[in-house]
Amino acid sequence: MKENYEAFSKQTANHVPLSPLSFLERTAAIFPDRTAVIYEDRKYTWSEVLDRVKRLASGLKARGIGLGDTVSVMAANTPELFELHYAVPLTGAVLNTINTRLEPETVAYILDHSDARLVIADTAFSGVVSKALELNGNTLPVINIKDADGPGGDLIGAQTYEAVIENGDPDFCWQGPDDEWQALALNYTSGTSGRPKGVVYHHRGAYLMAMGTPIAWELPRHPVYLYTVPMFHCNGWCHAWTMTLMAATIVCTRQVTGNNVFKLISDHGVTHLGGAPIVLSMLVNTPDEDRTPLNGKVKIMTAGAPPPAAILAATKALGFEVMQVYGLTETYGHVSQCLWREEWNDLTSAEQAELQSWQGVGFPMTEDFDVVNRESGSPVPWDGSTQGEIVIRGNTVMKGYYKSPRSTQEALSEGYFKSGDAAVRHPNGYVQIKDRLKDVIISGGENISSVEVEGVLHQHPDVVMAAVVAKPDDKWGEVPCAFVELKEGSSATEESLIAFCREHMAGFKRPKKIVFTELPKTATGKIQKYVLRQEARTIANETS
Amino acid sequence: MKENYEAFSKQTANHVPLSPLSFLERTAAIFPDRTAVIYEDRKYTWSEVLDRVKRLASGLKARGIGLGDTVSVMAANTPELFELHYAVPLTGAVLNTINTRLEPETVAYILDHSDARLVIADTAFSGVVSKALELNGNTLPVINIKDADGPGGDLIGAQTYEAVIENGDPDFCWQGPDDEWQALALNYTSGTSGRPKGVVYHHRGAYLMAMGTPIAWELPRHPVYLYTVPMFHCNGWCHAWTMTLMAATIVCTRQVTGNNVFKLISDHGVTHLGGAPIVLSMLVNTPDEDRTPLNGKVKIMTAGAPPPAAILAATKALGFEVMQVYGLTETYGHVSQCLWREEWNDLTSAEQAELQSWQGVGFPMTEDFDVVNRESGSPVPWDGSTQGEIVIRGNTVMKGYYKSPRSTQEALSEGYFKSGDAAVRHPNGYVQIKDRLKDVIISGGENISSVEVEGVLHQHPDVVMAAVVAKPDDKWGEVPCAFVELKEGSSATEESLIAFCREHMAGFKRPKKIVFTELPKTATGKIQKYVLRQEARTIANETS
Repeated sequence: MKENYEAFSKQTANHVPLSPLSFLERTAAIFPDRTAVIYEDRKYTWSEVLDRVKRLASGLKARGIGLGDTVSVMAANTPELFELHYAVPLTGAVLNTINTRLEPETVAYILDHSDARLVIADTAFSGVVSKALELNGNTLPVINIKDADGPGGDLIGAQTYEAVIENGDPDFCWQGPDDEWQALALNYTSGTSGRPKGVVYHHRGAYLMAMGTPIAWELPRHPVYLYTVPMFHCNGWCHAWTMTLMAATIVCTRQVTGNNVFKLISDHGVTHLGGAPIVLSMLVNTPDEDRTPLNGKVKIMTAGAPPPAAILAATKALGFEVMQVYGLTETYGHVSQCLWREEWNDLTSAEQAELQSWQGVGFPMTEDFDVVNRESGSPVPWDGSTQGEIVIRGNTVMKGYYKSPRSTQEALSEGYFKSGDAAVRHPNGYVQIKDRLKDVIISGGENISSVEVEGVLHQHPDVVMAAVVAKPDDKWGEVPCAFVELKEGSSATEESLIAFCREHMAGFKRPKKIVFTELPKTATGKIQKYVLRQEARTIANETS
Repeated sequence: MKENYEAFSKQTANHVPLSPLSFLERTAAIFPDRTAVIYEDRKYTWSEVLDRVKRLASGLKARGIGLGDTVSVMAANTPELFELHYAVPLTGAVLNTINTRLEPETVAYILDHSDARLVIADTAFSGVVSKALELNGNTLPVINIKDADGPGGDLIGAQTYEAVIENGDPDFCWQGPDDEWQALALNYTSGTSGRPKGVVYHHRGAYLMAMGTPIAWELPRHPVYLYTVPMFHCNGWCHAWTMTLMAATIVCTRQVTGNNVFKLISDHGVTHLGGAPIVLSMLVNTPDEDRTPLNGKVKIMTAGAPPPAAILAATKALGFEVMQVYGLTETYGHVSQCLWREEWNDLTSAEQAELQSWQGVGFPMTEDFDVVNRESGSPVPWDGSTQGEIVIRGNTVMKGYYKSPRSTQEALSEGYFKSGDAAVRHPNGYVQIKDRLKDVIISGGENISSVEVEGVLHQHPDVVMAAVVAKPDDKWGEVPCAFVELKEGSSATEESLIAFCREHMAGFKRPKKIVFTELPKTATGKIQKYVLRQEARTIANETS
């Protein structure tokens, strides 16, 4: 009877808030002596990681960090950034990892907007961080990650990460969150239309992401995972937590190059890695003499942009097993996967690669992954041709955008998260992205807002009008290509405009090609970007 | 800032109640044409299962079944019982599967106590069900499962399961629970001490159980799972839901015999199965000529009682890979696993079997699995000798006992669920059961583990199965009394077995009395020690 079934209250014994923090405790207890993290000459076991994390958390707490405080981190994929995925939330605080390629102005904006209470920065980025702090009036304390294997860089202030650990309390007592809906991480989007937005993750979502991933990827126990995905991107696709659950060995590196990836795979017996399609290109384009043959199967999870089928096929030919996934910062990373189907076994390699470039079906923890008509909201037919917008519902959809109730409302209020990506559904139910609804350029896995680049170009005194679109690029996937109308009599050149951009924005965002031309416009004066996109494609074909 | 992080409300887009029902929808959408269930000559694909389940749910709804109603089922491991794991909760109702070996009086008690609104019964059990209904005044409607491959039996009334499906609505609309804490299943314990208690499961727990199991067992996609575990026991260890998540093929059978298990493995390419140690014994004792050699690796999850190391070793020698797990009805089934450790690879087969008989460490979704001192509640040292009680905390601990607030309170109020099992923790953190607390034999002030004595008896080549209980003794308080099943034609005697024990253990632990008999077992193959304990008491009275 309903009343009898409802008579039970939740108790400590039978209702524990879900949190990825529980994975570290479990794995360190069961496999204390197994290697957890490898980076250059350093190695830590799981008990050492737990010890360092507890000491660090106690040090943060001693500095006043606690429930609901933001701790901002600007660091490379070293053991420190991995450890911070535990140490910061262990205090109840929220981990805000910042894209290390951003310019000081945007970093300053993020530090301010996120209400950061403390900054932890690798000295490799101390130049940018110093300038950002200066812009904000130098009010934040900094803990410096000084890495002998890094490129050096000045300290900001005197505090170092290792000193915090050394002076920390190895017996630091902690407990998981009281509420699984509690904020865990804050990840800023690249700000496609104006300012970056702060995406808030909670413990429940990260836990479920970590539980769903091994099932989707058929992860065995003790994978050797090479961390080529920047941990500042969706917390490295939440793999920092997933790999702890699997008692993996995590190989860290600052250098994502073809040679180095092959070397690390060989040195450490890497079995799994992740990366944007550009990482696949790197592997494919590594000269034969720099390639170490693979000893066993190496599985790659790729995401960030639809990978070209040719690259997929070439990667497979090298012996890698690639699974494409799809997701956004707002969905904790991957929420769909191009799940392999047995009936594909007999197809040609080219046919397989074509199918594998689809975005596929929802992950186990994704409750709904669909393509809907933007007007009516109803699912598009499974005909492989009717376009709609990808929408997602599930527990790995963000809480919302930090301090942006209107954007949150816009993104979530219709019962699902609207991705902004246009796609079709094939007769087997698999989703394939067709185009971006927003004008995002995805270059080497990084989102570049065309609006932002245009904004900088418009700052140049000789530029009348500029429009930026994606140009296909073999190496980077896409690069920004600018179409510009100049003032009469201007002597600006392609080189001088690119140099101007470089001064005003992160290097990777600058246009790689500039075309001087009259911009095609609609009757009402709107620029016809689709015309420019076609032109950029033509240029790409001509030059490739 | 705390307030800013707390400003988000849960929305449909980002907060979906966890429920195993979502697995069926996902798997049927992605793999509609894959074989889901095989039973004798019947086969259903995942889309057929979904269709049947929806029709069935609509039929239940038409009969007035809805939120919080109990639907009791007495059925064998056929496709119907699997389907009911979805059809009943799809209506919001609670699935109450009843042990098919119970006598009419207990079935009547369960039907009454559970507030059952409807009974679904295989005609194989219509004799028992009729009597039980009669005892309760015949107030409940019955739907009959009429299985051409079953042993027959009369219909109770006129309604049949297939007619409900035939007349059901294939477009039945359903949605998951509004609250993941909503009741999903009601499983009565075997009631070794008095009346059976009704253990209530919720959707959240079953979902997490299903997500944690593939990780712990390293389940690949599309396992071929032979359902030898009765689905009425902890919902077949929740594998009914787990296997749907993995898009498995589930092989059903009524006949769990060595011959038949070998035949089904060979016929269908079974890769995984589960079972009590008695199933292992069956496999080991199947005559050579009835055994089909295994084509590939077959993994067995075993639970229900600590398996004797000798049986483990023999099963392994046949080519099976056995993982022992431990759990109780109150914990949805398995919550600990004897997780394999790489350092065991080099041990002898006997040493490995000995270690594999331990209960091990918590599952991924188990938040705490510990052994505590019964007085102080603090964890016992990891010394392999100090005994305490196994306690469990996590989201796969029951809501409580149905309509038994006092028992619920007793079981859960100390921050964990108290198992009633006595165990030690070894220096590597692995838990080993020493006994049910009530099975410990206290002889002359010394604790004797009945499990240990049984382990020695199982090493004797002529012993098929042995159970040891306390026999009251004037001098020692209690002494071990063994009940033993011998191989056919064995000439072993009480004296020779006692002598064998004396060679292999401390003298005070050896059985003082041995009775050759067939052991009384429960439906799930557990030995009914309370029956033996009574018998030992009778023997003691007769001889004193």
